[in-house]
Amino acid sequence: MAELTNEIKKIAVVGTGVIGNGWIARFLAQGYDVVATDPAEGAEGRMCAAVEHAWPALEKMGLAEGASQDRLHFESELKQAVADVDFIQECVPEREDLKRKVLADIDRHAKQGAVIASSTSGIVPSTLQADCQHPERVIVAHPFNPVYLIPLVELVGGQKTDSAVIEQARKFYDSIQMKPLVISTEIEGHVGDRLMEAIWREALHLVNDGVATTEEIDASIVYGPGLRWALMGPFLTLHLAGGDQGMRHMLEQFGPALKLPWTKLEAPELTDELSNRVIEGCEHQTEGQSVAELNKRRDEFLIELLELLEKYWPAANLNGRL
Amino acid sequence: MAELTNEIKKIAVVGTGVIGNGWIARFLAQGYDVVATDPAEGAEGRMCAAVEHAWPALEKMGLAEGASQDRLHFESELKQAVADVDFIQECVPEREDLKRKVLADIDRHAKQGAVIASSTSGIVPSTLQADCQHPERVIVAHPFNPVYLIPLVELVGGQKTDSAVIEQARKFYDSIQMKPLVISTEIEGHVGDRLMEAIWREALHLVNDGVATTEEIDASIVYGPGLRWALMGPFLTLHLAGGDQGMRHMLEQFGPALKLPWTKLEAPELTDELSNRVIEGCEHQTEGQSVAELNKRRDEFLIELLELLEKYWPAANLNGRL
Repeated sequence: MAELTNEIKKIAVVGTGVIGNGWIARFLAQGYDVVATDPAEGAEGRMCAAVEHAWPALEKMGLAEGASQDRLHFESELKQAVADVDFIQECVPEREDLKRKVLADIDRHAKQGAVIASSTSGIVPSTLQADCQHPERVIVAHPFNPVYLIPLVELVGGQKTDSAVIEQARKFYDSIQMKPLVISTEIEGHVGDRLMEAIWREALHLVNDGVATTEEIDASIVYGPGLRWALMGPFLTLHLAGGDQGMRHMLEQFGPALKLPWTKLEAPELTDELSNRVIEGCEHQTEGQSVAELNKRRDEFLIELLELLEKYWPAANLNGRL
Repeated sequence: MAELTNEIKKIAVVGTGVIGNGWIARFLAQGYDVVATDPAEGAEGRMCAAVEHAWPALEKMGLAEGASQDRLHFESELKQAVADVDFIQECVPEREDLKRKVLADIDRHAKQGAVIASSTSGIVPSTLQADCQHPERVIVAHPFNPVYLIPLVELVGGQKTDSAVIEQARKFYDSIQMKPLVISTEIEGHVGDRLMEAIWREALHLVNDGVATTEEIDASIVYGPGLRWALMGPFLTLHLAGGDQGMRHMLEQFGPALKLPWTKLEAPELTDELSNRVIEGCEHQTEGQSVAELNKRRDEFLIELLELLEKYWPAANLNGRL
């Protein structure tokens, strides 16, 4: 049984890529002191710029009392960064050897009772905690980009994780306006990325086979299923398409289609040609707009969309019961 | 070369299930005269009730001048229903033998120059037009539920389809506030359903394996990827997650993950146990709310979401270029 820190006041973020910086922005906006560390050249400058870009959206969402970018501190040494914090969010590149090493380092230097959460999208926690002296406090807490706006965070414990740590993490993420989904089974990709990977692989096939361009595929989502997926997952979507009989009717009518070769059964070979077709497709779609410009528009949209979700699909209802 | 009707004034809808009734409501709201036919007992009453349910949403979206439910006529005989219309939307159950027979009957009785569009979600047009005397006017026009609100319609021609018919259909659907996506390659499931089927099959595996409930899976979409899919498809989503390097960086970082067993390679056996788990999961999620109640809330949400899309992702931009 881990002796847990009663209150989380200061947070360390290890690794300041897109995901790490997204966590930093969310933590700061929620009024926390944040210390960040990353060994990469120029990391501090990129981090500050990323938080600056996210801030207007966070101001529109509403900052917590005392929230300030001034409460962010960059520390070049991991040892110093994690030494006196209550919660550590690991966001280093998605390589098992690297994450295992960094998590062991964090565990070695973090104070007793501090929770260590990995943002890994694919690696299971039992593997990640294997080299830690205090594996009971190591969990997976997988977010979705942009981390400072998307509420979902998947929480998974490993074989050696203390269930009390999962519960403390669940309460913490809930308190910072997120939707923590506790997943009891360890699988690579957890749940959300499994679903995204399935659509991603099929989309790659459609591009690879020349059936549709990336633009056409994206449009087929945005103007169709995507409008529903902002409100309903795959199950409720079919439930509502089934008439008064709902899912029961849909399974009777379309169950047999599961026998049809409607999806490719393996991921396509990611050839240079396919890679280039996908990359050039996206660059064509964005008409020279920078990712930053697109991010800004996306953020403004997501703020209003989240308000719509709250209005029509309040947390007390349906999918909100997490 | 088909001699096309210059102007579409009157439309026939053959088959009045969820999809057929959705088309009827959209056509009426756009100010068309509509004649519907369906051999099923009580079909006319269910059709009128469905249009009545859809009408408030359509009024909020804005009715065309002269639009009225009074301009809907039910005709028990298919022969009379299609005899003097300019456009026929076929919506009978998804069975190849049935659709081929019905389309041949429609083709036999429809006037010269009338366009015949099948709503099939999975069957390719070359197969559907095989028994028709005038196959050049037969196309696939696949919509998404709720048809009266979701803009996407996939247009596919068969080997014998006249390209001028595809173009006329594209202009027609565009004129009734839809986003017609012309797909040049015939594949089962077209594009949208390929992508939905991929996520659906993986979701069924997660339920079948006991990794997550239908509610958890739906929530993992609604509070995560779904918020983005209302604005971006799978490609732009990853493009924006890749930092300044966009998709290029994402493929470098996550391309190798395509080699990992992150999706099941075949559809699961749809056992009674799995069917029941899925059905009961949806009934549990909806807390006794009827599909009609859920539809109403979904409709109200979609109206505002569509306004958001138009505001942040105008048709002139990005995925809007269809």
